[in-house]
Amino acid sequence: MTSVAKLEEYRERIRTELDGVVDFWLRHSNDTSHGGFFNCIGRDGSIYDELKYVWLQGRQVWMYCRLYRTMDRFHRPEVLEAAKAGAAFLKKYARSSSSSSSGSSQWKCAFCLTRDGKAVKIQRTIFSECFYIMAMDELSRVTGDKDMQAESELMMEQLIHWVRVDSSGLGRPQLPGDIPTNSLAVPMMMLCLVQQLTEGRNQEVVQKYRELGAWCVQQILQHVQRGGTAILENVSLDGSELLGCLGRLQNPGHVLEAGWFLLQYAAKQGDEALQCTAINTFMELPYQSGWDKEHGGLFYFMDVDGHCPTQLEWSMKLWWPHCEALVAFLMAYSQTKKPELLQRFSEVYEYTFSHFPDGENGEWFGYLTQEGKVALDLKGGPFKGFFHVPRCLHMCELMLDNLLANKDQMSNKQ
Amino acid sequence: MTSVAKLEEYRERIRTELDGVVDFWLRHSNDTSHGGFFNCIGRDGSIYDELKYVWLQGRQVWMYCRLYRTMDRFHRPEVLEAAKAGAAFLKKYARSSSSSSSGSSQWKCAFCLTRDGKAVKIQRTIFSECFYIMAMDELSRVTGDKDMQAESELMMEQLIHWVRVDSSGLGRPQLPGDIPTNSLAVPMMMLCLVQQLTEGRNQEVVQKYRELGAWCVQQILQHVQRGGTAILENVSLDGSELLGCLGRLQNPGHVLEAGWFLLQYAAKQGDEALQCTAINTFMELPYQSGWDKEHGGLFYFMDVDGHCPTQLEWSMKLWWPHCEALVAFLMAYSQTKKPELLQRFSEVYEYTFSHFPDGENGEWFGYLTQEGKVALDLKGGPFKGFFHVPRCLHMCELMLDNLLANKDQMSNKQ
Repeated sequence: MTSVAKLEEYRERIRTELDGVVDFWLRHSNDTSHGGFFNCIGRDGSIYDELKYVWLQGRQVWMYCRLYRTMDRFHRPEVLEAAKAGAAFLKKYARSSSSSSSGSSQWKCAFCLTRDGKAVKIQRTIFSECFYIMAMDELSRVTGDKDMQAESELMMEQLIHWVRVDSSGLGRPQLPGDIPTNSLAVPMMMLCLVQQLTEGRNQEVVQKYRELGAWCVQQILQHVQRGGTAILENVSLDGSELLGCLGRLQNPGHVLEAGWFLLQYAAKQGDEALQCTAINTFMELPYQSGWDKEHGGLFYFMDVDGHCPTQLEWSMKLWWPHCEALVAFLMAYSQTKKPELLQRFSEVYEYTFSHFPDGENGEWFGYLTQEGKVALDLKGGPFKGFFHVPRCLHMCELMLDNLLANKDQMSNKQ
Repeated sequence: MTSVAKLEEYRERIRTELDGVVDFWLRHSNDTSHGGFFNCIGRDGSIYDELKYVWLQGRQVWMYCRLYRTMDRFHRPEVLEAAKAGAAFLKKYARSSSSSSSGSSQWKCAFCLTRDGKAVKIQRTIFSECFYIMAMDELSRVTGDKDMQAESELMMEQLIHWVRVDSSGLGRPQLPGDIPTNSLAVPMMMLCLVQQLTEGRNQEVVQKYRELGAWCVQQILQHVQRGGTAILENVSLDGSELLGCLGRLQNPGHVLEAGWFLLQYAAKQGDEALQCTAINTFMELPYQSGWDKEHGGLFYFMDVDGHCPTQLEWSMKLWWPHCEALVAFLMAYSQTKKPELLQRFSEVYEYTFSHFPDGENGEWFGYLTQEGKVALDLKGGPFKGFFHVPRCLHMCELMLDNLLANKDQMSNKQ
């Protein structure tokens, strides 16, 4: 099969999957009585729990808006209406003020809400707030709502304060043995937000976040350890290795996701050295160390020294690392046209599309055993929503469109 | 094989296992520089992390003392010295005062400490404190230290206050959607402590905890739902079923453990109705619903309506539910002599002893896949210490001693 035919085959399957996934969530997830989205959705689309998870509410609003804004076939009223209903629910209920006395600010969001919006749990981290910002910024791009954009930027100021100045507002007690840690998730998430808030905005906004973007990249690069041979999930604030399991932990999917965040950033900045690091270090290393040579698929957690991780699910194959790997390798191939990167994409594609999609009821399974058997058959749960699968399919489809358009141009020139 | 020969075979294997397990921990776990115990111990006995988990420190002190006090062959100086060193570490470091402003009392214990005793994490639950009390009370029985016994009882007063009067001292923010819940773990743990603190003590102490014991039993029985056909892990404070995954959750190993707690209590009270409930409901039900008919072994979590649990490890086979099942069925058989209960014990025994012990390096694996393959090869970790395996082996050996002694008597009478 020619390379063009192969890319066309990928695009066809990816487009079909994306249509199916969007349809699944539009049909099953909207809560028309209380607003917002059901998150806990069983194999066949039935709701098995009514709790609403703020990460997933925010991500779903963001994803609907992104699809509505960037793909003609999703520029449909029901997509925008679902996004607006989700955002209204978030605005009304997510920022539930906690009764904690630990200086929680007006911006702290809950992690989990009841169906009618009462706070069930508040995490002492920044992530609910991050997805709230992503949702509001993306919706403001669709609606042109300047107040909503301004609110996102105000909340972003609070996040920056928590991350870079003083985290005490998050409510975590300071304990003498709890060493401050640079966890990969934090600078990754902040870089993602910088890209979200600045994309296509005027120079004033771009300038406002320029230094933060560079800081995020530097913080992410601190996770490259052991002479460039390993990427560790947690390092000390001065970028050295931490003791014990925490210090040795590796999360291949997370590194691959960081890889394509860096690649996007490098492309925007025209930074070839960073492009090189993103591909050779943040993509090739986790693939080499994280791919299961026996059963295929990416491990969830690993220990850099080969000890057994203490996370019970370490050897399971989760959907999202595979989504991140698909985006990462296709983006790397798009930027470099190196055939070995398309080969990597193909390997991940084969495993992913032969294991995760549910041919019977639509959408994807999220959790497989090491051997590739479905371990949990839910389609949505506390950490799986309308996000990684459609984001991956959406990005891959657009990248394949571009690749194929350029191939056509090349063919026409010949 | 005659039934006596079978019991003798069980006792022989169990005694050998117990010797091996005690030896493993005495050799690998003592931290002779900083005191206390290493908890994170790899397959071959090597230390893969130096963090010290307070639950496990307390349990290990308790277990050493129990072995020293009740079995001649463990009445050895090095067992007592290890226990004392663990208790000294706990007394010095576990009650690290938190910097939290949320009314933490002098009795709040950390969950995790650095090797040299600095607090890393404090849970907003009662369990660190529970295992602290168990450790101190059991050690006081060995040493005759009245101050230590008195301290245990004082800490117990604090626990009772948190559980029955006002939990705000635990530091959990009150959230409008977070409904107060009766979690099976809490009354189970409190009943365990009542049995610990009163065993062999004078009438004054027994009387002091009498009403609490009855309350714990009543709280445990509230988890029997759906007309006696299911035991649910979480119910409302008035004993009705909760909505969603939380309300439908089942933990078969936990129920079996509650079963033998109830059986001990019933025997002491001469309560035949409770004995019946303990066996027919708390042992037979979780065995029927929780035993994997395809691969053998007890599931970790289940959903009473057959939905897929959201816990990624739901289908794994963990060591401790099997330990609890062995104790439960052998105790039930000892009290009733019903052959079907010995049959249950045998079934669990066959699975347990053919899957969990590590013939090569000693001790037991803790975490198997649904199919019975070792998923994590650690011997000790954040939740697996010197507790469930030796407690089970110790109790089973003593029960088999009694059964065989009585069989001998019966034989002699014939």
